[in-house]
Amino acid sequence: MKKWEISVIPGDGIGTEVMPETIRVLDTLAEIHGGLTFNYKEYPWSCEYYLEHGVMMPEDGLKQLAQSDAVFLGAVGNPKLVPDHVSLWGLLVNIRRGFEQVINVRPAKQMKGIASPLVNPNEFDFIVVRENSEGEYSEVGGRIHSGEDEMAIQNAVFTKKGTTRAMEYAFELAKTRSGLVTSATKSNGIVHSMPFWDEVFQETAKQYGDIQTQSIHIDALSAFLVSKPHMLDVIVASNLFGDILTDIGAAIMGSIGIAPAANININGKFPSMFEPVHGSAPDIVGKGIANPIGQIWTGKMMLDHLGEGELGTLLLDSIEEVLQNGVKTPDIGGTASTIEVTNEIIKRLKLRA
Amino acid sequence: MKKWEISVIPGDGIGTEVMPETIRVLDTLAEIHGGLTFNYKEYPWSCEYYLEHGVMMPEDGLKQLAQSDAVFLGAVGNPKLVPDHVSLWGLLVNIRRGFEQVINVRPAKQMKGIASPLVNPNEFDFIVVRENSEGEYSEVGGRIHSGEDEMAIQNAVFTKKGTTRAMEYAFELAKTRSGLVTSATKSNGIVHSMPFWDEVFQETAKQYGDIQTQSIHIDALSAFLVSKPHMLDVIVASNLFGDILTDIGAAIMGSIGIAPAANININGKFPSMFEPVHGSAPDIVGKGIANPIGQIWTGKMMLDHLGEGELGTLLLDSIEEVLQNGVKTPDIGGTASTIEVTNEIIKRLKLRA
Ligand SMILES: CC(C)[C@H](C(=O)O)[C@@H](O)C(=O)O
Ligand SMILES: CC(C)[C@H](C(=O)O)[C@@H](O)C(=O)O
Repeated sequence: MKKWEISVIPGDGIGTEVMPETIRVLDTLAEIHGGLTFNYKEYPWSCEYYLEHGVMMPEDGLKQLAQSDAVFLGAVGNPKLVPDHVSLWGLLVNIRRGFEQVINVRPAKQMKGIASPLVNPNEFDFIVVRENSEGEYSEVGGRIHSGEDEMAIQNAVFTKKGTTRAMEYAFELAKTRSGLVTSATKSNGIVHSMPFWDEVFQETAKQYGDIQTQSIHIDALSAFLVSKPHMLDVIVASNLFGDILTDIGAAIMGSIGIAPAANININGKFPSMFEPVHGSAPDIVGKGIANPIGQIWTGKMMLDHLGEGELGTLLLDSIEEVLQNGVKTPDIGGTASTIEVTNEIIKRLKLRA
Repeated sequence: MKKWEISVIPGDGIGTEVMPETIRVLDTLAEIHGGLTFNYKEYPWSCEYYLEHGVMMPEDGLKQLAQSDAVFLGAVGNPKLVPDHVSLWGLLVNIRRGFEQVINVRPAKQMKGIASPLVNPNEFDFIVVRENSEGEYSEVGGRIHSGEDEMAIQNAVFTKKGTTRAMEYAFELAKTRSGLVTSATKSNGIVHSMPFWDEVFQETAKQYGDIQTQSIHIDALSAFLVSKPHMLDVIVASNLFGDILTDIGAAIMGSIGIAPAANININGKFPSMFEPVHGSAPDIVGKGIANPIGQIWTGKMMLDHLGEGELGTLLLDSIEEVLQNGVKTPDIGGTASTIEVTNEIIKRLKLRA
């Protein structure tokens, strides 16, 4: 009997609504598989936790998570209780960095059964490989205070090591797909970091002779995601550019509520973390209408990562079937609740098994 | 007789194709008006010029332009001849900075007669006010060279002065429109410059009590431009964020070939510059099919700036009429040439006059 140890952090807002539903789905998959169990350990770390303890997670929090096979996160943030940068950096970014989850992987594809806001989505299907540890999200910087002449300086730091590993990850991924890697750059406007990014891209490309490449400036590439997303395959992007492109990816899929993500520790020292692209969505919390598909699809990415790819595929097929049958939450034009969508996915899984 | 002195820089690629057509349009407007002439002075500054002279424009180039009422630019860049950052910084960015054109204004609206790639464009109509002199496009930064440990550092510099004036421009503009200013931020991920940006936004907002405000992170806002662009009015954004948002704006309009832009000198010391959002488009150059509407609409922004708003309105109405009549270049689904579209606009102008 295989046993996967999963650290579960539902977090805030709709994170606490979609997480238990996704656990039901995972348990169904374990049942179908027969020779497999998930052992969950749940952590209450959240903004509520912060109010009680003054921190988003305990000091030895990373140590507590370190032994598990994966961290499964819902959503973080409740700006009414805790400023966003405190909650997000205290939990989400803290785990990304503490566990050296240097790559963020986010697929975007046209899903059967969901209306894309695009007239011609043309069955787009791409994956953004986002550098997840440095770049524009560096903490280096500060202020010069002098009244009218005040200024803020923010240093973006791009290391050869960090940039190269993101690109290598993208090229390896492209090998398993159609074989085109697009680099998101802005070297015509950002004159130090982005020419460096381009150089590392060209160097890395040399090691992958058969893989086609192109570099597109982030402004044009963002537009490209709207005009012809089907012409993209693997995109490699900096921390900030990846953040932007993946939200556009979610938008053209039809809802941020369905977009999945994985934060990958590539050296095997620490667990990877799986968290959907959406946030805690304070506006719809408590209504029971949060779309569980972002979290469930993220569960599929976790299964793939654990080597349970067959279960992952079964799960994604079932999700698409449910969508095509019209059992959908309001964000994608349906009237079903979080629980109803999940029930339907579980039913399909059992029928397919 | 009013005389407007216009410095004309056709530049590279399709810039040299759409510029003469736009001049024909401007001359028609002068004729219609009766009491007005445009005096053009043309400058051959371009990548070809660079090959001959080793610079994109002469050392006293800014001085040559300084006496005119406006600079009218086509497009810059021919990567086969000159690296992009050399050509763009040598001409376009050089004029933006030399003439203290600290604000970049770019409207985006659903045009009658052009199919938006969005299923529900809902008659969106917004304007991006982009900080045009500093921020992420600072030249501060460099490299640390040490083999594997090489890194590039890019400093984004946000001054109180630069940030405030962009915001004030946005709020003043909002007064003349529906009265909503949206700030593009990313203070949950970029921890020095963007919280500063937010503070300046809040301070400026206090001086404009009746104007509604919201702050949206750039990732979510980029997605918003795809999912509900009609809910936006004036957006204020940093140099980089503005660059990205305006290309998405052009994409949802249906083509980058129609999007106009103005680089505004707000202290009146130097001329402002008017240049469409599109580039030199090496892929279609020489075919006679470049869309002239981006340049012509940019001409309308120049007219507005010169105080010839009535002519500007007449021009935009004529453009929409031509589009609705289906006389369109291939990028927006038509079969007409650059010249045919312009002829048709001129015909409509004369009929309306
Ligand atoms: C060419 C480049 C430097 C420029 C910019 O980013 O400002 C362009 O993309 C634009 O938007 O005018
Ligand atoms: C909350 C924020 C720090 C985060 C990011 O920008 O990384 C989020 O937008 C994401 O994409 O996971």
